[in-house]
Amino acid sequence: MSYVVVYGGKGALGGQCVSAFKASGLNVISIDFKPNEEAVGNIVLKFEQSFEEQEQAVLSGLKEALGDKKLSAVVCVAGGWAGGNAASDELVKNTDLMIKQSVWTSIISARVSSQFLEENGLLVLTGAVPALKGTSFMLGYGLAKAAVHQLVQGLAQDDSGMPKGATTIAILPTTLSTPMNLKFMPDADHSKWTSLEEVASGLLKRITEPTSREANGSLVQILTADGQTEWKPAQITIA
Amino acid sequence: MSYVVVYGGKGALGGQCVSAFKASGLNVISIDFKPNEEAVGNIVLKFEQSFEEQEQAVLSGLKEALGDKKLSAVVCVAGGWAGGNAASDELVKNTDLMIKQSVWTSIISARVSSQFLEENGLLVLTGAVPALKGTSFMLGYGLAKAAVHQLVQGLAQDDSGMPKGATTIAILPTTLSTPMNLKFMPDADHSKWTSLEEVASGLLKRITEPTSREANGSLVQILTADGQTEWKPAQITIA
Repeated sequence: MSYVVVYGGKGALGGQCVSAFKASGLNVISIDFKPNEEAVGNIVLKFEQSFEEQEQAVLSGLKEALGDKKLSAVVCVAGGWAGGNAASDELVKNTDLMIKQSVWTSIISARVSSQFLEENGLLVLTGAVPALKGTSFMLGYGLAKAAVHQLVQGLAQDDSGMPKGATTIAILPTTLSTPMNLKFMPDADHSKWTSLEEVASGLLKRITEPTSREANGSLVQILTADGQTEWKPAQITIA
Repeated sequence: MSYVVVYGGKGALGGQCVSAFKASGLNVISIDFKPNEEAVGNIVLKFEQSFEEQEQAVLSGLKEALGDKKLSAVVCVAGGWAGGNAASDELVKNTDLMIKQSVWTSIISARVSSQFLEENGLLVLTGAVPALKGTSFMLGYGLAKAAVHQLVQGLAQDDSGMPKGATTIAILPTTLSTPMNLKFMPDADHSKWTSLEEVASGLLKRITEPTSREANGSLVQILTADGQTEWKPAQITIA
Protein backbone atom coordinates (compact mmCIF):
# COMPACT_ATOMS: atom_id res chain seq x y z
CA MET A 1 0.00 0.00 0.00
CA SER A 2 1.38 3.38 -1.05
CA TYR A 3 2.53 6.10 1.29
CA VAL A 4 2.17 9.80 0.53
CA VAL A 5 3.00 12.95 2.47
CA VAL A 6 0.68 15.93 2.71
CA TYR A 7 2.63 18.92 3.99
CA GLY A 8 0.13 21.32 5.53
CA GLY A 9 -2.25 18.41 6.13
CA LYS A 10 -4.27 20.25 8.75
CA GLY A 11 -5.00 23.28 6.55
CA ALA A 12 -8.13 23.84 4.49
CA LEU A 13 -6.77 22.34 1.27
CA GLY A 14 -4.45 19.92 3.08
CA GLY A 15 -7.27 18.45 5.13
CA GLN A 16 -9.28 17.90 1.96
CA CYS A 17 -6.28 16.16 0.39
CA VAL A 18 -5.78 13.90 3.40
CA SER A 19 -9.45 12.85 3.27
CA ALA A 20 -9.50 12.29 -0.48
CA PHE A 21 -6.20 10.42 -0.60
CA LYS A 22 -7.17 8.24 2.36
CA ALA A 23 -10.54 7.42 0.81
CA SER A 24 -8.74 6.07 -2.25
CA GLY A 25 -6.61 3.76 -0.14
CA LEU A 26 -3.39 5.73 0.27
CA ASN A 27 -1.53 5.87 3.58
CA VAL A 28 -1.24 9.55 4.33
CA ILE A 29 1.37 11.10 6.60
CA SER A 30 0.51 14.66 7.53
CA ILE A 31 3.04 17.36 8.40
CA ASP A 32 1.65 20.44 10.12
CA PHE A 33 1.57 22.37 13.38
CA LYS A 34 -1.39 20.26 14.50
CA PRO A 35 -2.11 16.58 13.92
CA ASN A 36 -4.72 15.45 11.41
CA GLU A 37 -6.53 12.51 13.02
CA GLU A 38 -7.41 11.05 9.61
CA ALA A 39 -3.76 10.53 8.74
CA VAL A 40 -1.96 7.26 9.51
CA GLY A 41 0.98 9.28 10.74
CA ASN A 42 1.60 12.86 11.87
CA ILE A 43 4.72 14.94 12.12
CA VAL A 44 3.81 17.88 14.31
CA LEU A 45 6.07 20.91 14.04
CA LYS A 46 6.37 23.86 16.37
CA PHE A 47 5.99 27.38 15.04
CA GLU A 48 9.04 28.57 16.96
CA GLN A 49 11.35 25.98 15.38
CA SER A 50 13.97 27.33 13.01
CA PHE A 51 14.18 26.33 9.34
CA GLU A 52 16.87 23.74 10.13
CA GLU A 53 14.98 22.41 13.16
CA GLN A 54 11.84 21.94 11.08
CA GLU A 55 13.82 20.13 8.41
CA GLN A 56 15.39 17.79 10.97
CA ALA A 57 12.04 17.10 12.64
CA VAL A 58 10.50 16.22 9.29
CA LEU A 59 13.34 14.03 8.05
CA SER A 60 13.73 12.13 11.32
CA GLY A 61 9.95 11.76 11.72
CA LEU A 62 9.64 10.29 8.23
CA LYS A 63 12.55 7.94 8.76
CA GLU A 64 10.81 6.60 11.83
CA ALA A 65 7.40 6.36 10.14
CA LEU A 66 8.59 4.80 6.90
CA GLY A 67 11.50 2.55 7.83
CA ASP A 68 12.66 1.21 4.47
CA LYS A 69 9.46 2.13 2.63
CA LYS A 70 9.38 4.90 0.05
CA LEU A 71 6.80 7.59 -0.73
CA SER A 72 4.73 7.61 -3.92
CA ALA A 73 4.16 11.33 -3.66
CA VAL A 74 4.95 14.43 -1.64
CA VAL A 75 2.20 17.05 -1.83
CA CYS A 76 3.02 20.40 -0.23
CA VAL A 77 -0.07 22.55 0.14
CA ALA A 78 1.20 24.46 3.16
CA GLY A 79 0.86 28.20 2.79
CA GLY A 80 -1.08 31.23 3.81
CA TRP A 81 -1.87 34.75 2.81
CA ALA A 82 -0.86 38.16 4.06
CA GLY A 83 -0.95 41.53 2.31
CA GLY A 84 1.17 44.64 2.42
CA ASN A 85 2.78 47.06 -0.02
CA ALA A 86 6.02 49.01 0.47
CA ALA A 87 4.25 51.59 2.65
CA SER A 88 2.91 48.97 5.05
CA ASP A 89 4.41 48.75 8.53
CA GLU A 90 3.41 45.08 8.41
CA LEU A 91 5.36 44.26 5.25
CA VAL A 92 8.44 42.84 6.92
CA LYS A 93 6.51 40.73 9.40
CA ASN A 94 4.20 39.46 6.67
CA THR A 95 7.01 38.71 4.24
CA ASP A 96 8.77 36.74 6.95
CA LEU A 97 5.62 34.70 7.52
CA MET A 98 5.04 34.08 3.81
CA ILE A 99 8.63 32.86 3.38
CA LYS A 100 8.20 30.46 6.27
CA GLN A 101 4.85 29.17 5.10
CA SER A 102 5.66 28.77 1.40
CA VAL A 103 9.43 28.66 0.89
CA TRP A 104 10.53 26.74 3.97
CA THR A 105 7.87 24.10 3.41
CA SER A 106 8.73 23.80 -0.29
CA ILE A 107 12.45 23.45 0.34
CA ILE A 108 11.86 20.86 3.07
CA SER A 109 9.54 19.02 0.67
CA ALA A 110 12.39 18.93 -1.84
CA ARG A 111 14.67 17.50 0.86
CA VAL A 112 12.01 14.90 1.74
CA SER A 113 11.67 13.95 -1.93
CA SER A 114 15.40 13.59 -2.34
CA GLN A 115 15.54 11.12 0.55
CA PHE A 116 12.21 9.30 0.58
CA LEU A 117 10.43 9.64 -2.78
CA GLU A 118 10.41 6.53 -4.95
CA GLU A 119 11.69 6.54 -8.52
CA ASN A 120 9.09 8.00 -10.89
CA GLY A 121 7.39 9.58 -7.89
CA LEU A 122 5.57 12.92 -7.76
CA LEU A 123 6.38 16.14 -5.92
CA VAL A 124 3.75 18.87 -5.94
CA LEU A 125 4.42 22.35 -4.59
CA THR A 126 1.96 25.24 -4.40
CA GLY A 127 2.39 28.54 -6.20
CA ALA A 128 -0.21 31.10 -7.23
CA VAL A 129 -1.45 32.49 -10.55
CA PRO A 130 -1.14 36.16 -9.45
CA ALA A 131 2.55 35.68 -8.59
CA LEU A 132 3.35 35.06 -12.27
CA LYS A 133 3.29 38.86 -12.41
CA GLY A 134 3.80 41.64 -9.87
CA THR A 135 1.54 41.80 -6.81
CA SER A 136 1.80 45.35 -5.46
CA PHE A 137 -0.65 44.98 -2.58
CA MET A 138 0.72 41.65 -1.37
CA LEU A 139 4.44 41.90 -2.00
CA GLY A 140 5.54 39.25 0.49
CA TYR A 141 2.98 36.72 -0.66
CA GLY A 142 3.85 37.21 -4.31
CA LEU A 143 7.59 36.96 -3.91
CA ALA A 144 7.34 33.79 -1.81
CA LYS A 145 5.14 32.12 -4.44
CA ALA A 146 7.46 33.30 -7.24
CA ALA A 147 10.31 31.68 -5.34
CA VAL A 148 8.37 28.41 -5.35
CA HIS A 149 7.78 28.72 -9.10
CA GLN A 150 11.50 29.07 -9.73
CA LEU A 151 12.30 26.20 -7.36
CA VAL A 152 10.02 23.86 -9.31
CA GLN A 153 11.83 24.69 -12.53
CA GLY A 154 15.16 23.91 -10.89
CA LEU A 155 13.96 20.63 -9.41
CA ALA A 156 12.90 19.53 -12.89
CA GLN A 157 16.44 19.89 -14.22
CA ASP A 158 19.09 17.19 -14.31
CA ASP A 159 21.30 16.97 -11.24
CA SER A 160 18.66 18.57 -9.00
CA GLY A 161 19.00 15.75 -6.49
CA MET A 162 15.50 14.41 -7.17
CA PRO A 163 14.98 10.65 -7.62
CA LYS A 164 15.27 9.15 -11.08
CA GLY A 165 12.17 9.71 -13.19
CA ALA A 166 10.49 11.93 -10.61
CA THR A 167 8.09 14.64 -11.70
CA THR A 168 7.92 18.00 -9.92
CA ILE A 169 5.06 20.38 -10.66
CA ALA A 170 3.58 23.43 -8.98
CA ILE A 171 -0.14 23.94 -8.77
CA LEU A 172 -1.09 27.59 -9.16
CA PRO A 173 -4.56 28.25 -7.78
CA THR A 174 -6.18 31.64 -8.24
CA THR A 175 -8.60 31.79 -5.31
CA LEU A 176 -9.68 28.69 -3.41
CA SER A 177 -13.10 28.30 -1.79
CA THR A 178 -11.75 28.06 1.72
CA PRO A 179 -13.78 29.02 4.80
CA MET A 180 -11.30 31.87 5.39
CA ASN A 181 -11.63 33.29 1.88
CA LEU A 182 -15.42 33.05 2.04
CA LYS A 183 -15.38 34.87 5.36
CA PHE A 184 -13.11 37.72 4.22
CA MET A 185 -14.34 38.07 0.63
CA PRO A 186 -18.06 37.38 0.90
CA ASP A 187 -18.90 39.67 -2.03
CA ALA A 188 -16.21 38.49 -4.49
CA ASP A 189 -17.12 36.72 -7.73
CA HIS A 190 -17.24 33.16 -6.42
CA SER A 191 -17.81 31.69 -9.89
CA LYS A 192 -14.05 32.09 -10.46
CA TRP A 193 -13.10 30.39 -7.23
CA THR A 194 -11.92 26.79 -7.24
CA SER A 195 -13.33 24.22 -4.83
CA LEU A 196 -11.04 22.29 -2.52
CA GLU A 197 -12.57 19.04 -3.80
CA GLU A 198 -11.56 19.90 -7.37
CA VAL A 199 -7.95 20.47 -6.36
CA ALA A 200 -7.75 17.39 -4.12
CA SER A 201 -9.25 15.11 -6.76
CA GLY A 202 -6.99 16.54 -9.44
CA LEU A 203 -3.96 15.87 -7.25
CA LEU A 204 -5.15 12.35 -6.45
CA LYS A 205 -5.42 11.61 -10.16
CA ARG A 206 -1.87 12.81 -10.76
CA ILE A 207 -0.59 10.64 -7.89
CA THR A 208 -2.31 7.44 -8.98
CA GLU A 209 -2.16 7.88 -12.78
CA PRO A 210 1.38 8.93 -13.73
CA THR A 211 0.37 9.48 -17.36
CA SER A 212 -2.01 12.23 -16.24
CA ARG A 213 0.87 14.33 -14.94
CA GLU A 214 1.96 17.49 -16.69
CA ALA A 215 5.56 17.75 -17.88
CA ASN A 216 8.28 17.88 -15.23
CA GLY A 217 8.73 21.47 -14.06
CA SER A 218 5.27 22.65 -15.09
CA LEU A 219 3.58 25.57 -13.34
CA VAL A 220 0.01 24.33 -13.61
CA GLN A 221 -2.51 27.13 -13.40
CA ILE A 222 -5.86 26.05 -11.97
CA LEU A 223 -8.34 28.32 -13.70
CA THR A 224 -12.02 28.32 -12.87
CA ALA A 225 -14.76 30.17 -14.77
CA ASP A 226 -18.48 29.65 -14.36
CA GLY A 227 -17.79 26.69 -12.13
CA GLN A 228 -15.66 24.94 -14.80
CA THR A 229 -12.03 24.31 -13.92
CA GLU A 230 -9.09 23.91 -16.27
CA TRP A 231 -5.57 22.76 -15.27
CA LYS A 232 -3.32 24.65 -17.66
CA PRO A 233 0.49 24.76 -17.59
CA ALA A 234 1.79 28.31 -17.94
CA GLN A 235 3.89 28.90 -21.06
CA ILE A 236 6.71 31.26 -20.15
CA THR A 237 9.09 32.69 -22.72
CA ILE A 238 12.03 34.93 -21.87
CA ALA A 239 14.07 36.93 -24.34
CA MET B 1 23.69 67.88 -2.77
CA SER B 2 21.97 64.58 -3.39
CA TYR B 3 21.87 61.68 -0.97
CA VAL B 4 21.83 58.07 -2.05
CA VAL B 5 21.83 54.78 -0.16
CA VAL B 6 24.01 51.83 -1.09
CA TYR B 7 22.72 48.72 0.68
CA GLY B 8 25.60 46.27 0.87
CA GLY B 9 28.06 49.18 0.63
CA LYS B 10 30.97 47.20 2.04
CA GLY B 11 30.66 44.32 -0.47
CA ALA B 12 32.67 43.95 -3.66
CA LEU B 13 30.11 45.64 -5.92
CA GLY B 14 28.79 47.88 -3.15
CA GLY B 15 32.23 49.27 -2.37
CA GLN B 16 32.75 50.06 -6.04
CA CYS B 17 29.39 51.85 -6.10
CA VAL B 18 30.21 53.91 -3.01
CA SER B 19 33.50 55.02 -4.59
CA ALA B 20 32.01 55.83 -7.97
CA PHE B 21 28.98 57.64 -6.59
CA LYS B 22 31.12 59.64 -4.15
CA ALA B 23 33.55 60.62 -6.91
CA SER B 24 30.66 62.15 -8.85
CA GLY B 25 29.62 64.28 -5.89
CA LEU B 26 26.84 62.22 -4.33
CA ASN B 27 26.51 61.83 -0.56
CA VAL B 28 26.50 58.10 0.00
CA ILE B 29 25.05 56.38 3.04
CA SER B 30 26.17 52.77 3.30
CA ILE B 31 24.20 49.98 4.94
CA ASP B 32 26.14 46.81 5.72
CA PHE B 33 27.54 44.67 8.52
CA LYS B 34 30.73 46.73 8.44
CA PRO B 35 31.18 50.47 7.88
CA ASN B 36 32.53 51.81 4.60
CA GLU B 37 34.88 54.66 5.50
CA GLU B 38 34.30 56.36 2.14
CA ALA B 39 30.63 56.88 2.90
CA VAL B 40 29.34 60.08 4.55
CA GLY B 41 27.14 57.91 6.78
CA ASN B 42 27.01 54.27 7.80
CA ILE B 43 24.25 52.12 9.18
CA VAL B 44 25.93 49.05 10.60
CA LEU B 45 23.73 46.03 11.08
CA LYS B 46 24.39 42.91 13.11
CA PHE B 47 24.14 39.49 11.52
CA GLU B 48 22.15 38.12 14.45
CA GLN B 49 19.43 40.77 14.14
CA SER B 50 16.03 39.55 12.99
CA PHE B 51 14.34 40.80 9.82
CA GLU B 52 12.26 43.28 11.82
CA GLU B 53 15.24 44.43 13.88
CA GLN B 54 17.26 45.09 10.72
CA GLU B 55 14.36 47.05 9.23
CA GLN B 56 14.03 49.17 12.37
CA ALA B 57 17.78 49.82 12.54
CA VAL B 58 17.80 50.94 8.91
CA LEU B 59 14.73 53.17 9.13
CA SER B 60 15.76 54.85 12.37
CA GLY B 61 19.36 55.24 11.18
CA LEU B 62 18.23 56.94 7.99
CA LYS B 63 15.82 59.21 9.84
CA GLU B 64 18.70 60.37 11.99
CA ALA B 65 21.10 60.76 9.05
CA LEU B 66 18.68 62.51 6.71
CA GLY B 67 16.47 64.65 8.90
CA ASP B 68 14.02 66.20 6.43
CA LYS B 69 16.14 65.47 3.38
CA LYS B 70 15.15 62.86 0.80
CA LEU B 71 17.12 60.27 -1.14
CA SER B 72 17.69 60.49 -4.90
CA ALA B 73 18.26 56.77 -5.15
CA VAL B 74 18.34 53.55 -3.19
CA VAL B 75 20.73 50.97 -4.67
CA CYS B 76 20.61 47.53 -3.09
CA VAL B 77 23.55 45.40 -4.18
CA ALA B 78 23.61 43.26 -1.05
CA GLY B 79 23.71 39.56 -1.78
CA GLY B 80 25.87 36.51 -1.88
CA TRP B 81 26.10 33.06 -3.35
CA ALA B 82 25.66 29.56 -2.01
CA GLY B 83 24.96 26.33 -3.84
CA GLY B 84 23.05 23.17 -3.09
CA ASN B 85 20.53 20.89 -4.79
CA ALA B 86 17.76 18.87 -3.13
CA ALA B 87 20.22 16.18 -2.06
CA SER B 88 22.49 18.64 -0.25
CA ASP B 89 22.55 18.62 3.53
CA GLU B 90 23.49 22.31 3.26
CA LEU B 91 20.41 23.30 1.25
CA VAL B 92 18.32 24.57 4.14
CA LYS B 93 21.14 26.54 5.74
CA ASN B 94 22.12 28.02 2.39
CA THR B 95 18.56 28.89 1.39
CA ASP B 96 18.12 30.65 4.72
CA LEU B 97 21.25 32.69 4.06
CA MET B 98 20.25 33.55 0.49
CA ILE B 99 16.83 34.76 1.66
CA LYS B 100 18.44 36.96 4.29
CA GLN B 101 21.03 38.38 1.90
CA SER B 102 18.76 39.02 -1.09
CA VAL B 103 15.12 39.10 0.02
CA TRP B 104 15.41 40.79 3.41
CA THR B 105 17.65 43.51 1.97
CA SER B 106 15.34 44.04 -1.00
CA ILE B 107 12.22 44.29 1.13
CA ILE B 108 13.92 46.70 3.54
CA SER B 109 15.06 48.75 0.51
CA ALA B 110 11.43 48.95 -0.58
CA ARG B 111 10.49 50.16 2.90
CA VAL B 112 13.30 52.74 2.78
CA SER B 113 12.11 53.93 -0.63
CA SER B 114 8.55 54.26 0.57
CA GLN B 115 9.65 56.52 3.42
CA PHE B 116 12.72 58.39 2.18
CA LEU B 117 12.95 58.30 -1.63
CA GLU B 118 12.08 61.55 -3.40
CA GLU B 119 9.46 61.76 -6.13
CA ASN B 120 10.83 60.48 -9.45
CA GLY B 121 13.60 58.74 -7.52
CA LEU B 122 15.25 55.43 -8.39
CA LEU B 123 15.23 52.09 -6.59
CA VAL B 124 17.59 49.40 -7.88
CA LEU B 125 17.49 45.82 -6.60
CA THR B 126 19.77 42.98 -7.65
CA GLY B 127 18.59 39.79 -9.33
CA ALA B 128 20.49 37.35 -11.51
CA VAL B 129 20.23 36.19 -15.13
CA PRO B 130 20.36 32.46 -14.24
CA ALA B 131 17.35 32.83 -11.89
CA LEU B 132 15.12 33.67 -14.87
CA LYS B 133 15.07 29.87 -15.28
CA GLY B 134 15.61 26.93 -12.94
CA THR B 135 18.92 26.62 -11.11
CA SER B 136 19.18 22.97 -10.02
CA PHE B 137 22.62 23.18 -8.40
CA MET B 138 21.92 26.41 -6.50
CA LEU B 139 18.27 26.15 -5.55
CA GLY B 140 18.34 28.62 -2.65
CA TYR B 141 20.24 31.26 -4.59
CA GLY B 142 17.92 31.00 -7.57
CA LEU B 143 14.68 31.18 -5.64
CA ALA B 144 15.84 34.20 -3.63
CA LYS B 145 16.77 36.06 -6.81
CA ALA B 146 13.49 35.03 -8.48
CA ALA B 147 11.69 36.49 -5.47
CA VAL B 148 13.50 39.78 -6.06
CA HIS B 149 12.48 39.73 -9.74
CA GLN B 150 8.83 39.36 -8.79
CA LEU B 151 9.12 42.06 -6.11
CA VAL B 152 10.42 44.55 -8.67
CA GLN B 153 7.43 43.91 -10.91
CA GLY B 154 5.09 44.53 -7.99
CA LEU B 155 6.85 47.72 -6.92
CA ALA B 156 6.38 49.07 -10.44
CA GLN B 157 2.60 48.72 -10.21
CA ASP B 158 0.19 51.39 -9.02
CA ASP B 159 -0.54 51.39 -5.31
CA SER B 160 2.76 49.68 -4.47
CA GLY B 161 3.52 52.34 -1.84
CA MET B 162 6.44 53.76 -3.83
CA PRO B 163 6.78 57.55 -4.21
CA LYS B 164 5.11 59.28 -7.15
CA GLY B 165 7.06 58.90 -10.38
CA ALA B 166 9.61 56.53 -8.87
CA THR B 167 11.31 53.93 -11.05
CA THR B 168 12.15 50.47 -9.72
CA ILE B 169 14.41 48.19 -11.72
CA ALA B 170 16.43 45.06 -11.02
CA ILE B 171 19.89 44.60 -12.40
CA LEU B 172 20.55 40.98 -13.39
CA PRO B 173 24.27 40.29 -13.62
CA THR B 174 25.51 36.96 -14.94
CA THR B 175 28.93 36.67 -13.29
CA LEU B 176 30.75 39.65 -11.80
CA SER B 177 34.54 39.98 -11.73
CA THR B 178 34.76 39.96 -7.96
CA PRO B 179 37.88 38.84 -6.07
CA MET B 180 35.83 35.92 -4.70
CA ASN B 181 34.67 34.75 -8.12
CA LEU B 182 38.18 35.04 -9.53
CA LYS B 183 39.49 33.00 -6.62
CA PHE B 184 36.94 30.19 -6.90
CA MET B 185 36.56 30.11 -10.70
CA PRO B 186 40.09 30.83 -11.95
CA ASP B 187 39.60 28.77 -15.10
CA ALA B 188 36.16 30.06 -16.15
CA ASP B 189 35.67 32.05 -19.36
CA HIS B 190 36.35 35.52 -17.96
CA SER B 191 35.46 37.22 -21.25
CA LYS B 192 31.78 36.79 -20.26
CA TRP B 193 32.26 38.27 -16.80
CA THR B 194 31.22 41.82 -16.07
CA SER B 195 33.54 44.25 -14.30
CA LEU B 196 32.42 46.00 -11.14
CA GLU B 197 33.33 49.34 -12.70
CA GLU B 198 30.92 48.70 -15.58
CA VAL B 199 28.05 48.01 -13.20
CA ALA B 200 28.84 50.94 -10.88
CA SER B 201 29.14 53.41 -13.75
CA GLY B 202 25.95 52.13 -15.34
CA LEU B 203 24.11 52.59 -12.07
CA LEU B 204 25.56 56.09 -11.59
CA LYS B 205 24.29 57.07 -15.02
CA ARG B 206 20.79 55.86 -14.18
CA ILE B 207 20.84 57.81 -10.90
CA THR B 208 21.99 61.09 -12.38
CA GLU B 209 20.26 60.90 -15.79
CA PRO B 210 16.64 59.86 -15.27
CA THR B 211 16.06 59.57 -19.03
CA SER B 212 18.66 56.81 -19.18
CA ARG B 213 16.55 54.56 -16.94
CA GLU B 214 14.80 51.50 -18.29
CA ALA B 215 11.02 51.27 -17.90
CA ASN B 216 9.64 50.94 -14.39
CA GLY B 217 9.66 47.26 -13.37
CA SER B 218 12.37 46.19 -15.81
CA LEU B 219 14.59 43.21 -15.13
CA VAL B 220 17.73 44.51 -16.76
CA GLN B 221 20.09 41.74 -17.82
CA ILE B 222 23.75 42.78 -17.81
CA LEU B 223 25.27 40.67 -20.58
CA THR B 224 28.97 40.66 -21.35
CA ALA B 225 30.65 39.00 -24.32
CA ASP B 226 34.23 39.56 -25.46
CA GLY B 227 34.55 42.35 -22.94
CA GLN B 228 31.53 44.24 -24.37
CA THR B 229 28.58 44.74 -22.01
CA GLU B 230 24.94 45.24 -22.92
CA TRP B 231 22.17 46.27 -20.48
CA LYS B 232 19.10 44.50 -21.84
CA PRO B 233 15.65 44.34 -20.18
CA ALA B 234 14.28 40.80 -20.21
CA GLN B 235 11.08 40.37 -22.22
CA ILE B 236 8.88 37.90 -20.38
CA THR B 237 5.71 36.51 -21.92
CA ILE B 238 3.29 34.29 -20.00
CA ALA B 239 0.36 32.45 -21.55
